Amino acid sequence: MTFELVSENKSFGGRQQRFKHFAKTLNCEMHFSIYLPPAAETKPVPVLYWLSGLTCTDENFVTKAGAQAYAAKYNIAIVAPDTSPRGSDVPDDPEGAYDLGLGAGFYVDATEPPWDKHYRMYDYIVDELPEWLDQHIPHILTDRASIFGHSMGGHGALTIALKHPQDYRSVSAFAPIVSPIRCPWGQKALKHYIGNDQQAWREYDTCALIEAGAVQVPMLIDQGTSDSFLDTELKTALLEEACKKADYESRIRYQEGYDHSYFFISSFIEEHIGFHHKYLLEE
Amino acid sequence: MTFELVSENKSFGGRQQRFKHFAKTLNCEMHFSIYLPPAAETKPVPVLYWLSGLTCTDENFVTKAGAQAYAAKYNIAIVAPDTSPRGSDVPDDPEGAYDLGLGAGFYVDATEPPWDKHYRMYDYIVDELPEWLDQHIPHILTDRASIFGHSMGGHGALTIALKHPQDYRSVSAFAPIVSPIRCPWGQKALKHYIGNDQQAWREYDTCALIEAGAVQVPMLIDQGTSDSFLDTELKTALLEEACKKADYESRIRYQEGYDHSYFFISSFIEEHIGFHHKYLLEE
Repeated sequence: MTFELVSENKSFGGRQQRFKHFAKTLNCEMHFSIYLPPAAETKPVPVLYWLSGLTCTDENFVTKAGAQAYAAKYNIAIVAPDTSPRGSDVPDDPEGAYDLGLGAGFYVDATEPPWDKHYRMYDYIVDELPEWLDQHIPHILTDRASIFGHSMGGHGALTIALKHPQDYRSVSAFAPIVSPIRCPWGQKALKHYIGNDQQAWREYDTCALIEAGAVQVPMLIDQGTSDSFLDTELKTALLEEACKKADYESRIRYQEGYDHSYFFISSFIEEHIGFHHKYLLEE
Repeated sequence: MTFELVSENKSFGGRQQRFKHFAKTLNCEMHFSIYLPPAAETKPVPVLYWLSGLTCTDENFVTKAGAQAYAAKYNIAIVAPDTSPRGSDVPDDPEGAYDLGLGAGFYVDATEPPWDKHYRMYDYIVDELPEWLDQHIPHILTDRASIFGHSMGGHGALTIALKHPQDYRSVSAFAPIVSPIRCPWGQKALKHYIGNDQQAWREYDTCALIEAGAVQVPMLIDQGTSDSFLDTELKTALLEEACKKADYESRIRYQEGYDHSYFFISSFIEEHIGFHHKYLLEE
């Protein structure tokens, strides 16, 4: 399996790297980014996965979140994958909408044509990417991982952590889609990728997973009160409800006046990395 | 004179704003960005101007430098203007090069046609923008200012501070062009904007200004050793030489392994804002 180091920039004493590799799960070439803190040069460090939102690539987080300062401080590597398969033979929304197809993989394994040949971001994040890191990046302890994300990526982080509590020590999210089965973005994606069986959708729904008895994972959520998607797509209250009913512990914070942008994310990124640090460093 | 608040995002408890206004100096509409720290809501705060490099707009710094965290911490507003006049009637390099015309105003006042109708970034930064802020943003103390920048913007910050030591309390730069009269980027720009009189170019050359007896302004420079423009365009050693000869105090640091990107800038932005803070807060 071939791969290429596309770029490397020194950042806060560590290395911001971008790789390209052939992802067999997705049947296409993929880019992803890794930040290695200075401490990783002498001793392998834990890893925190970041999943981005609709329209993003692996680069938005890397250039805008300001995470490297705190990854360097807390001795954590951050791995940021892309948000969907890519390439000229990868199908896209026929109408070119931003919420389906390229940039909108939704971190699910598609079962419906034409999506099922490439759109398997769930397996890619959970299996292939950690295996690749294990083989190629000795600076990273892949068995000491946590996961976080934004919006669609918040949904991805939450569902992946809830379904693999043994593999992720903690999970956090900025403005996550907490119940894709109950919002337009999620319904559109699930219908196309998974088909009409709404029972199958529940496997990719944070609230449904908690209602079905998910094992406790340490969880932190930040949601801006001026986020224009809060009422229609994100619906944080549904998660509060689900957690309450299932007696599931979660720290859900409403941040006054913050919107859906990276200005919101960067304002609280230190706290999120600090939150994960606590669990990643535990013996 | 009309203006418009184009966007506002909450960031680190403060406000990241973007304005559009008609700049009479430049004879066109201009965008610029302001970050107001939380403290500015109750009491006016000092201002730090950021000048960006070639190809940038006002937005690169705002989204990539991670400055808001430290502007909020140190109670400083940051104003980031664009790098050239803009608009369909503003001339550009006929060959579309990135180092002349749009995105490459070089912080000079052009005297040569066709540039002289719009390319007056020097006056815009030194006079019009502070006056505008004075009139419209009561949260900012325009008589308590410092200035910094990157590459072409480092050149702009240094020359402007050296020519107006009474108006800027301190100056710093990341990877500045220290002697435009002795590098291809600078020579091309000065020839087009100012004409063939190389004596006139010296007014826009940091080294020449220091050699000519510029008044001391507190000065900090960071230069990455892996910057691909170091030997051909930036030539930091020329500034070291000029300072030594003129007994001009400057702190010039070479940062091992850093390149010309915002990964370099963000790694040291806290130190630069901290440096300016010391002078901006003095009574």
